[in-house]
Amino acid sequence: MKFATLKNQTRDGCLVLVSRDLSRCAPVPDIAPTLQAALDHWDACQPALQAAYEQLNAGSLAGSRPFDPAACHSPLPRAYQWADGSAYLNHVQLVRKARNSQVPDSFFTDPLMYQGGSDSFIGPRDPIAVASEDWGIDMEAEIAVVTADVPMGASPQQAGAAIRLLMLVNDVSLRGLIPGELAKGFGFFQSKPASAFSPVALTPDELGEHWRDGKVHLPLLVDLNGQPFGRPNAGRDMTFSFPQLIAHAARTRQLAAGSIVGSGTVSNQQGGLHGSSIRHGGVGYCCIAEVRMYETIETGAPSTPFMRFGDQVRIRMAGPQGEDLFGVIEQTVVPYPGA
Amino acid sequence: MKFATLKNQTRDGCLVLVSRDLSRCAPVPDIAPTLQAALDHWDACQPALQAAYEQLNAGSLAGSRPFDPAACHSPLPRAYQWADGSAYLNHVQLVRKARNSQVPDSFFTDPLMYQGGSDSFIGPRDPIAVASEDWGIDMEAEIAVVTADVPMGASPQQAGAAIRLLMLVNDVSLRGLIPGELAKGFGFFQSKPASAFSPVALTPDELGEHWRDGKVHLPLLVDLNGQPFGRPNAGRDMTFSFPQLIAHAARTRQLAAGSIVGSGTVSNQQGGLHGSSIRHGGVGYCCIAEVRMYETIETGAPSTPFMRFGDQVRIRMAGPQGEDLFGVIEQTVVPYPGA
Repeated sequence: MKFATLKNQTRDGCLVLVSRDLSRCAPVPDIAPTLQAALDHWDACQPALQAAYEQLNAGSLAGSRPFDPAACHSPLPRAYQWADGSAYLNHVQLVRKARNSQVPDSFFTDPLMYQGGSDSFIGPRDPIAVASEDWGIDMEAEIAVVTADVPMGASPQQAGAAIRLLMLVNDVSLRGLIPGELAKGFGFFQSKPASAFSPVALTPDELGEHWRDGKVHLPLLVDLNGQPFGRPNAGRDMTFSFPQLIAHAARTRQLAAGSIVGSGTVSNQQGGLHGSSIRHGGVGYCCIAEVRMYETIETGAPSTPFMRFGDQVRIRMAGPQGEDLFGVIEQTVVPYPGA
Repeated sequence: MKFATLKNQTRDGCLVLVSRDLSRCAPVPDIAPTLQAALDHWDACQPALQAAYEQLNAGSLAGSRPFDPAACHSPLPRAYQWADGSAYLNHVQLVRKARNSQVPDSFFTDPLMYQGGSDSFIGPRDPIAVASEDWGIDMEAEIAVVTADVPMGASPQQAGAAIRLLMLVNDVSLRGLIPGELAKGFGFFQSKPASAFSPVALTPDELGEHWRDGKVHLPLLVDLNGQPFGRPNAGRDMTFSFPQLIAHAARTRQLAAGSIVGSGTVSNQQGGLHGSSIRHGGVGYCCIAEVRMYETIETGAPSTPFMRFGDQVRIRMAGPQGEDLFGVIEQTVVPYPGA
């Protein structure tokens, strides 16, 4: 099944089922008015949602209309939990190498994860409003899952069975604020402004064979200002699967239905700066920080600037025939005028 | 006004108004079925809630019943945001002194704050279920506010105007897991299991003159296994007021209605280990870690153990006549049997 949330002046928006080809959608108010409501009562809602989804794809569902990704909020405009891992250790290794330090061995067995803010996400086409370009504005293109209830202490196997939905995410980061925050020891806060998620959230079965081992085995497609910037395969070099990330998050507390768990910036291992960019045949990058780390390692200093007002990022994922799977995150950085 | 949420087998429970003396309560389903619903539509709900509250206190509200704090969940059983500050720098100074380091000057102008998990709080009388005593189980008694919508970049003055409710909180911490997590650089995650809040959330006007300058000027009363353990005044030595903490949280993102912002462990400056305990005339401590820091500073090693299975913590706040204001958090540590 595929789902989206249309903006409608309410805090949680209007849940719609979206056809597999993203051409049509239909609200299902008699089944669930919002995506959180569907997740809260998934087992009860699932059969009716599945039946309506099949009708929608067959063109026989009453009340369907053209699907407009630009009318969407994030599938969960607000959520109760946003736990973001950092499962692609290549990204972490580059961060460390750029500052001449090593990745501790424990990082290969104990996932990095930060607690994110989830009270007010922005929509997939909403601008990224930032008060200052000096804060080092960056995208981070990631995959995320949405879970059912997960009991405390769940095994990776139990955690995997709790995965309900997959989404793409732009975990906007303010690189200039990160060193100061991490030095304080309490992790990210101001350096992680509101994230945006793909227009569509889908059940794992929609990916067929491309969803296996708790990973999405497809390239994540990132464009910066209309140019290809990243094409890494999200199934490669993911040290921890989603079931492992969820189990990590649930080690000392339960997770409630609708919890979002992120992969961290998707990153594939590449030889070095020159061959890593797409124009030189590499798979590119899912955040600007990554190319800056290659630059720092090889030339002593970064040269690619972070995002400026007016810069645009697009994040999407395509199926084997090039078909758009999740809709497109498309965001432009704009100056925030003040409170 | 005073509010509570009764457990009723739903995820958000049943909102009730609670009489000022905590003797009676009444659901208000025609106004708001849940506390989050009331916060989502506060301006529209507030007059009707206020009128019903006055009737409840006058004994004339239909449908009222005796109030039983043991039947309560936390006022928000799940919330969209839990941002916990560390505003009592005495606590931070002791942590640093115990490990022979200094508090940076910036800590007096830039608040410490961590992003907490908010998807599944536990109730004020629920057990604290932990898989291992070796994790260093500790309470942290704090004050928290619940906000209206707060725009990104709000000033402390704007932030103060957005404070809707006050609560007490037990921010359970697993001290043994903290060093490893902080060393990874991404802040707390597994070391902060589910928090519990006081049975009652109240509007600031309920505290009269004791709510001023964005702080609660009353002692926070903490008992450990039936013995007085902490009596610090929450209005003393609070370096950052709640309006300042909220403004910090909202610097790079808006906060949605129902966001919870915590004070951090309440802590008053005292001369040293001997005079700080209640039996020696001090105001005691709101977490076990604090007395262990005094012990470490003065004797070279901590001697007071963290909580064990069967240990009980009580957290409350009393008015000038000794009257209970928020109801009592009363929790016992129990072994978690596994997922």
